Formats: sequence, C-alpha cells, structure tokens
Amino acid sequence: MSDLFVFVNDRLLPASQASLLVNDLAIQRGYGVFDFLKTLGGRPIFPEEHLARFFHSAQRLRLRVDKTKEELYNAILVLMGKNNVPDSGIKLTLTGGYSPDGYTLSTPNLVITQSPLQLPAPGVFEKGIQLVSYPHQRQMPDTKSIDYLMAIWLQPFIREKGADDVLYHKDGVVSECPRSNFFIVTANDTVVTPAENILKGVMRGKVLELAGRQFKVEERPVLLEEVWTAREAFITSTTKHVLPVMAIDGRVIGEGAPGKVSKWFSGGLGELVMSRE
Amino acid sequence: MSDLFVFVNDRLLPASQASLLVNDLAIQRGYGVFDFLKTLGGRPIFPEEHLARFFHSAQRLRLRVDKTKEELYNAILVLMGKNNVPDSGIKLTLTGGYSPDGYTLSTPNLVITQSPLQLPAPGVFEKGIQLVSYPHQRQMPDTKSIDYLMAIWLQPFIREKGADDVLYHKDGVVSECPRSNFFIVTANDTVVTPAENILKGVMRGKVLELAGRQFKVEERPVLLEEVWTAREAFITSTTKHVLPVMAIDGRVIGEGAPGKVSKWFSGGLGELVMSRE
Repeated sequence: MSDLFVFVNDRLLPASQASLLVNDLAIQRGYGVFDFLKTLGGRPIFPEEHLARFFHSAQRLRLRVDKTKEELYNAILVLMGKNNVPDSGIKLTLTGGYSPDGYTLSTPNLVITQSPLQLPAPGVFEKGIQLVSYPHQRQMPDTKSIDYLMAIWLQPFIREKGADDVLYHKDGVVSECPRSNFFIVTANDTVVTPAENILKGVMRGKVLELAGRQFKVEERPVLLEEVWTAREAFITSTTKHVLPVMAIDGRVIGEGAPGKVSKWFSGGLGELVMSRE
Repeated sequence: MSDLFVFVNDRLLPASQASLLVNDLAIQRGYGVFDFLKTLGGRPIFPEEHLARFFHSAQRLRLRVDKTKEELYNAILVLMGKNNVPDSGIKLTLTGGYSPDGYTLSTPNLVITQSPLQLPAPGVFEKGIQLVSYPHQRQMPDTKSIDYLMAIWLQPFIREKGADDVLYHKDGVVSECPRSNFFIVTANDTVVTPAENILKGVMRGKVLELAGRQFKVEERPVLLEEVWTAREAFITSTTKHVLPVMAIDGRVIGEGAPGKVSKWFSGGLGELVMSRE
C-alpha cells in the first residue's frame, strides 16, 4: 500500500495511520457524504463544481462543514504539495462523526485522501463498454452519500454477465450507473439524459453545456425501451470523461461501435479539461 | 467517553484507540453488516439467534467471517470479562475491509464493542410510543447491513412530528421501524405482522413463538389502512422487548392505551429472557 498523506480533520497523517474510531457513524450507520475530483499535471480539474456539490451533499445530510470552500481548496493544495502525485484522484469524505450512542449525529469527521489516478485502460474508448441493467433506485439520489451497498454487492453479477458496469432502472425508467451518468442519442441526433432520481455529475453538466451548442438536448425520463433503439449511448464521469456503450444486457446499441456524437463529446471534454485555468 | 475494551479483529483495544483505516469499505462505501445482542446480569441473551443472523447477513453481503460461531461467542465472553458491564449491548460489525481502490471487496474487518445497555426510560410501556409513517423501503431488507442513512436522516423529522420513531411503508404497505418490528392486533384478536421486505428480528421470532400458543397469527402484508382500525399495535426489539404504539401520524390506535395483548407479550417475553440458560 502506498503511504501517501491523508488529512483526518486538521491532522496530516500517512495513510497507514489515517483512521477513524469505530464509533464514527460511517462505520456504525453508513452515514456520510463525499466528493471526488481529479488532478492532471498537478492541477485540480473543476474544483469549484466538486466543492459546491460537496457542500450541497453535506447540507442534504445535515452535516456541517467546518471550513469554507477556500479552506478546503487550500487543504487540497497542501495535500498535493506533500504527496507530489501530479495525476491523482482527490476524495473528500465527511462522516456523521463520533456518536456516543452509535445513532445520533455528532461533529462530522473530514477525511481528504489523494491517490494515483485510476484511468480507463488505453483503447477503452474504441472498444467501448458493456452494461447490464438492474432494477434499483438509490436513496437520496441527488446526494453523493457513501451508500454504495448495491454497487459493491453487484460486482460479481456484473462480471458474471460479462459486463463492465451496471445501469440502474426502476420499472423500466433508466437512472444512472453507480459512478457515471447515462446518455442516449436518438435517431434524429437529440442528446437525451435522465433529469430525475440521479446524481448530477460534474461531467454530465459539462456535456450538457457542450451539447447545447451543437445538438437538441432533452433532460427527461428515459425508458429502457427507447434505449434499445437509440443510435448511440454513452456514460460520463470524472475519470472516464465519455465512454461509448456498445451493448446493454447483450443487446447491441446502434452500430455497436463508438458513434460520431460520443466522439464529438469525447474531443470536446478533453479540450475543456485541458483548457481550464 | 467510557473507555471500554473493543475487539478490532484479534486485537483487544481501549475504545479510544479502536479504529479502522479510512480506506475501509464501511467508510468508503457504507459496506458492512452487524448484529446486536444484549447481556443481562453478565449473561448474553439469545446469542445463538443473533450469531446465526450475523452469519446470514455476512453471507448475503459476500463477507467471509474468519471465525466459527463458537469462536465469536468466546470473543464475546473475553470482552465481557475485560469490561465487567453486566447489563450491556454487544455489537458485532463486519466491514468490506481495507480496499486498495476504495471499491473492491477485501478481507473483512471484524469489530466487537460492548456498551452499557440503553434501556427504554421507566414507565415507557405504560406511556407507549408515537410513530410517524414515512415512505421508504430498505435495500436488502433481510440483511442487517449498516445502511441506516434514512433512519439517521429522519431524526429531526421524527422530533418535529412529536413522534418517538418512524414506521416505514411503501405504497401504503407497512414494513418495519428502523430498529424494531411492527405488529398489529385485529378486532378478532389475530396477531398480524409483515412477512416480507423486513429484517426478521430475534424478538419478532420470540413473539411469534409465544403468539402461536394463544392467538391466531398471520405473517402477511399489512396495509397502513388496516392499521388505523387495529385494536392494538406494538413494536418489538432486543432492547425494547414490546412497546405499545399509542398513535401513528397523530391518529390514535385502538383505545390509545397499552392493550391486553401487548401486555401479555411483554410479560411473556420478560419471562422468556429471564428463564434462558
């Protein structure tokens, strides 16, 4: 295990010593929120967006962040200075805190970790990914809580189905993948993505911004049924940017090859990420 | 904070030093299971039932318990010997373990804590409790996972409504309270409790055993609608045994006073708990 430095509240500790007492409500009751951003060449990507969402998630779960956005950003810079990993993932986690009775909210604990960036394997865009659908709706979907019970539990199921990830739906209405947002491109080149019952990803927002310049865009319920007849499907995430979805439940989407719209977004997002101050 | 001893895997540590590294999947992804039993006068109550359920939960979440039931029971006895708290709660927690990528299951961590028993306040049986209903269905309900996101989040809502706890339902079909099972007694003295989409509590099982000797018993879907016309309602749990429900959403159930069936079960469970070897 690499022993990078970690912030646990205001203490900077090697990862091998970065711990929380077992009465923390994350361990007792799975209660906490987080956000995850990446750094490229020592530069945080879209930090304002990620920090804004972190504060939103914390507020939704009634967890007080005892720092300003500027202070959090500075803590990230201090961590980056100590660890010297230019291409990295930075994760901020805020838990329910040390609870005397294991049930009542207490003063939140803040953990900030940095780890080498886990990028998709080379050539994965050209190869695309396979999804398998599964009926599930995350609780409090607009909040980036630490609840990934179903996502972790489904890992063997995903492997068994020969897929790369799972696409959640409820009664045939698609929502999201556990760590990515989902888009389709219709026969008339409209870019469509679910609006409700999802976590609004930062890359999702960027894709919608870009899309508005070139395509008709719809944020609305997406039926699994219309996914089958989509010309393209793709997912978006902080680490993956855009990845084309080749098939879902073994049924080929569109041509079963990366489509022109997915390629256009991939190029656009790449430029956007690189052009940031 | 009392500094009782805690097992973290095979290490016995004071609570002030009992911790898990922050890359544990409980902290990263809310992934873990637990069980909770009580001791009275230095005697574990229904340990076989609680340990059996702990193994069931672990298996459901694909977490290997690296000990036999006998070894776990012995660990509990060792902990009790060290802490000397005759009336206590013992909690066994098994997490997804230290995950290199924060997503993939690893070797589970086992935590065993003991704390002074938090019993209901004196006179609470006579006073009964108030519930407020809320539309929610726990994921993997038959598994005692650490997912109490909704339960913790609803605490201010419960207080605001002047209630003591929340009763989950889905589309008007009742399931359970976050830490208790729910029963009604119909006008013809039938004892009814939900059969599906719940965690099957140890006390629930004991009530059903006792009930079979005296009453007609039904395990089946319970509609919120029929709760309004029930003669009695009560909840069961390890710490509470039986508590009569006086009102739900401010609507009085039955006479609005502890009913004879609730009293009968309270007496029966009290005897059962005291008579155990």
